[in-house]
Amino acid sequence: MSDAPRSRATVQIHRDAELDPQVQAVRAKDPMSIVIFGASGDLAQRKLIPALYHLHNAGYLPSTYAVVGNGRTPMSDDEYRERMLEKVQEHVADGTKPGAKHPLIAALHYVTGDTDDAKTFADLREKLEALDAERKMPGNRLFYLSVAPRFFAPILMHLKEAGLIRGKHDPVWTRVIIEKPFGHDLQSARELNDAVTDVLDEDQIYRIDHYLGKETVQNILSFRFGNSIFEPLFNNNHVANVQITVAERLGMEGKRGAYYDRSGAIRDMVQNHMFQLLCLTAMEPPSALDARSIRDEKVKVLKSLIPQTPEEVAANTVRGQYGALNGKSEKLAAYREAEGVDPNSVTESYVALKVKVDNWRWAGVPFYLRTGKCLRKRASEIAITFKRPPLNLFRKESNSDYCLLADRPKYNRLILHIQPDEGMSLSFACKQPGMRVQLEEVDMQFMYEHAFQQRSPEAYERLLLDALRGDASLFTRSDEVDYAWRYITAILDGWKQLPAPKFPNYTPYTDGPEEAQRLMNAGERWRSLESM
Amino acid sequence: MSDAPRSRATVQIHRDAELDPQVQAVRAKDPMSIVIFGASGDLAQRKLIPALYHLHNAGYLPSTYAVVGNGRTPMSDDEYRERMLEKVQEHVADGTKPGAKHPLIAALHYVTGDTDDAKTFADLREKLEALDAERKMPGNRLFYLSVAPRFFAPILMHLKEAGLIRGKHDPVWTRVIIEKPFGHDLQSARELNDAVTDVLDEDQIYRIDHYLGKETVQNILSFRFGNSIFEPLFNNNHVANVQITVAERLGMEGKRGAYYDRSGAIRDMVQNHMFQLLCLTAMEPPSALDARSIRDEKVKVLKSLIPQTPEEVAANTVRGQYGALNGKSEKLAAYREAEGVDPNSVTESYVALKVKVDNWRWAGVPFYLRTGKCLRKRASEIAITFKRPPLNLFRKESNSDYCLLADRPKYNRLILHIQPDEGMSLSFACKQPGMRVQLEEVDMQFMYEHAFQQRSPEAYERLLLDALRGDASLFTRSDEVDYAWRYITAILDGWKQLPAPKFPNYTPYTDGPEEAQRLMNAGERWRSLESM
Repeated sequence: MSDAPRSRATVQIHRDAELDPQVQAVRAKDPMSIVIFGASGDLAQRKLIPALYHLHNAGYLPSTYAVVGNGRTPMSDDEYRERMLEKVQEHVADGTKPGAKHPLIAALHYVTGDTDDAKTFADLREKLEALDAERKMPGNRLFYLSVAPRFFAPILMHLKEAGLIRGKHDPVWTRVIIEKPFGHDLQSARELNDAVTDVLDEDQIYRIDHYLGKETVQNILSFRFGNSIFEPLFNNNHVANVQITVAERLGMEGKRGAYYDRSGAIRDMVQNHMFQLLCLTAMEPPSALDARSIRDEKVKVLKSLIPQTPEEVAANTVRGQYGALNGKSEKLAAYREAEGVDPNSVTESYVALKVKVDNWRWAGVPFYLRTGKCLRKRASEIAITFKRPPLNLFRKESNSDYCLLADRPKYNRLILHIQPDEGMSLSFACKQPGMRVQLEEVDMQFMYEHAFQQRSPEAYERLLLDALRGDASLFTRSDEVDYAWRYITAILDGWKQLPAPKFPNYTPYTDGPEEAQRLMNAGERWRSLESM
Repeated sequence: MSDAPRSRATVQIHRDAELDPQVQAVRAKDPMSIVIFGASGDLAQRKLIPALYHLHNAGYLPSTYAVVGNGRTPMSDDEYRERMLEKVQEHVADGTKPGAKHPLIAALHYVTGDTDDAKTFADLREKLEALDAERKMPGNRLFYLSVAPRFFAPILMHLKEAGLIRGKHDPVWTRVIIEKPFGHDLQSARELNDAVTDVLDEDQIYRIDHYLGKETVQNILSFRFGNSIFEPLFNNNHVANVQITVAERLGMEGKRGAYYDRSGAIRDMVQNHMFQLLCLTAMEPPSALDARSIRDEKVKVLKSLIPQTPEEVAANTVRGQYGALNGKSEKLAAYREAEGVDPNSVTESYVALKVKVDNWRWAGVPFYLRTGKCLRKRASEIAITFKRPPLNLFRKESNSDYCLLADRPKYNRLILHIQPDEGMSLSFACKQPGMRVQLEEVDMQFMYEHAFQQRSPEAYERLLLDALRGDASLFTRSDEVDYAWRYITAILDGWKQLPAPKFPNYTPYTDGPEEAQRLMNAGERWRSLESM
């Protein structure tokens, strides 16, 4: 009895005629199967299945679909459903309490097997064909590679050998979502790309960067090109510098150390997420808002990042690694003491870069990027600091004594807040109330959650739906990956040639190493994390 | 006992060493007498004496001063003090409860007499000289003409004949504050100016426009020239139009009708207050923030307002007069039925204008001005609407279907809110959370009262202090008055030649006459008062 109303409600969502026209316009319409490799992994359980659940409930999924998980843990379909139902109940954000009869749960299937083993793929094919027959689906497939990078190429090879990959012109589509990291330097990225493109056409590959699924990140283009007042200021005539910060409070909790120590901050955050933020901030207006046009413009920005010599790398980068914290109330082991980390590790848990974007629009404007673990707080933002006014009219000497401003005028600053609170703010000088002209810096603010009542979709919901619909705008193209690695690899090579940094060099839960300040041009400062 | 702590506190304010350096820098230092003509009038009682009280308490007045009221009502000094004490207690904004021993009250004096009578001025001189002798003051005087305009010239003549006006180079200063209106057309303004400048040098004349004492109005220059990001947009490349609104909810309450019916909206608000707002919005950066430089730039704007032919006046102005309101809950007599108003009056209680600022920066950008009585709400603002983005990238045709924006992009709009809530807001387009790129107009806001805890000084406090300090930046110079009247008089002359408007033509407590819309260029709308 208690399930009846819910299941009726769920069915209603699938009657097309009753759908919200906005949902109707963007929902995935083709019946298909989603295959998740790494189905018992953290990402799949915590993000992907809950994302599909939300997509289903909002009416974005096609009327017929199946989800097939794969992993080495032996499980039956029912065991898999049971386990996923728990995960969904744990991770759903909208307060619903789905039961075992929820259509998403009912659509779950499982194939046990190692991805090194051809039999796994034979079993998978059999399962998929049975589902196609049973549900009258034409055979569209989205393969989600939620596994370690070393499995990417072998899985694709097996899929091909099992006849599970169709050509790009086949009306029955095959698409593959590949999780990061896509390579660990330029050469490995190229090798991986070759392996992937041996099997798939570029149009079939969806390299996911979940940062691009965040509302504020997507909003950068709307903000820049949906308004007339910001774009005239977004260039080297008006901008003094751009600071992009992705600060994390977390460190090497759990088993992260083993992976992180082989990666480091620049690979883990800069090459992908932060370069995407940089591209969206710096790119020229595209000729249209389609995947190709947007990605063409992003690549142009990445092409303007000229790989640096070791001397330039020394001047323009600062690495950091956190030490132990022995506070009265807070204690934390140093990075080198974390589980899975080499006790002599020189892996950076923090990096700050000064990046030149050598194009006509931005030449001369430094882009400062920094990211790190165990920093003062979790905060991501893009801060655009504008040049000072050409003249300080408010200087004391030239005016009657009612003007009081001995120091120089403040900078104007536009901040795009990415997390935790998505929004925007603009700081400007304003007359303090009173008898004198005394300028004070104040903020105009806009916060997403205040302005919009509706829930923002999670990044993975948006990106999964886009892949199901075949829209690759928010996924990374191979040339983007290549140019990003070209620049980052030159830094990695430079570091190898430079003397080892003196680690540890910052205390947990601070703004990171003091030394980062040396990257700044005269008169400039990093934004304090405290103020974010 | 109970008065002791307060009187000690008051005394403390006057020990220079203990003063706040900010107050110290701008306080009036010269011992002086302030003479208020029209001392029993509404303005003097409700605004001027309370303003002096606040200035005294904040430490802005010199250590020695006297205030002498003049009016026809016979009163002793003590009676005058008693009455002003009541007014101060009624109108102070800071919650204090001054007693009769408050130094400001103790500094009040009164001279009874008609301003047509030479004896009044002989008495006044005697009083002032006695106060100078008693208080060891050198003879500095500020005369405040808070009387009807027809008394301006006779009072100045009598002051001169009584030997109460010193030359501009005399180290003992004489200054005169003249209340509005300064003339009722170009000719009368010039006659009045001739009469005033026969007696005083321009540097001794302070034509008051209390709008210029408001924080937000003063802030226009700080906002424009203390920041680098707005000024590049303030020109005809980026601005579509400027709308200046001064809407009042009040009508002809009390005895206002008799005065108003001879004046009308354009004389009462546009020639002075609204043209000042227009000047501050449109002016070029001055070479310094002193009175001369600022006023030179304002005059340049007024010079760019080319007087119109009657045909142009017909095309570019809309007059309104409110009719009766016979609502169920609200009733109001029509303008023509108000006390003191001619039953056949064609005086406008509302006016809307399209003004061309014919200079290099603003050519082609319409400035729309409107003001009126009995409108929907009390609200004053300057709204700068920017041009649309050069390209609607978000148009549906060129993109994948996830972009939804069939209509044209929104305008960006910067609003300087002047009253009732002082502040600023900037509207811009932002992506609505969700699966599609759907732009929505949102606001960034800044409100004075949220940002600053301290009380803003009242307009009259600021302006009185400036006059006492000899800073004329926020007062109107004769050439400003002249150019403003040149433009307004051409409109008044045009109206005389045009057919009488069909009055009444708007309902009280609405946005005014519908006809005002015809001033607008294609695609433009007046801002709705509801939204202010």
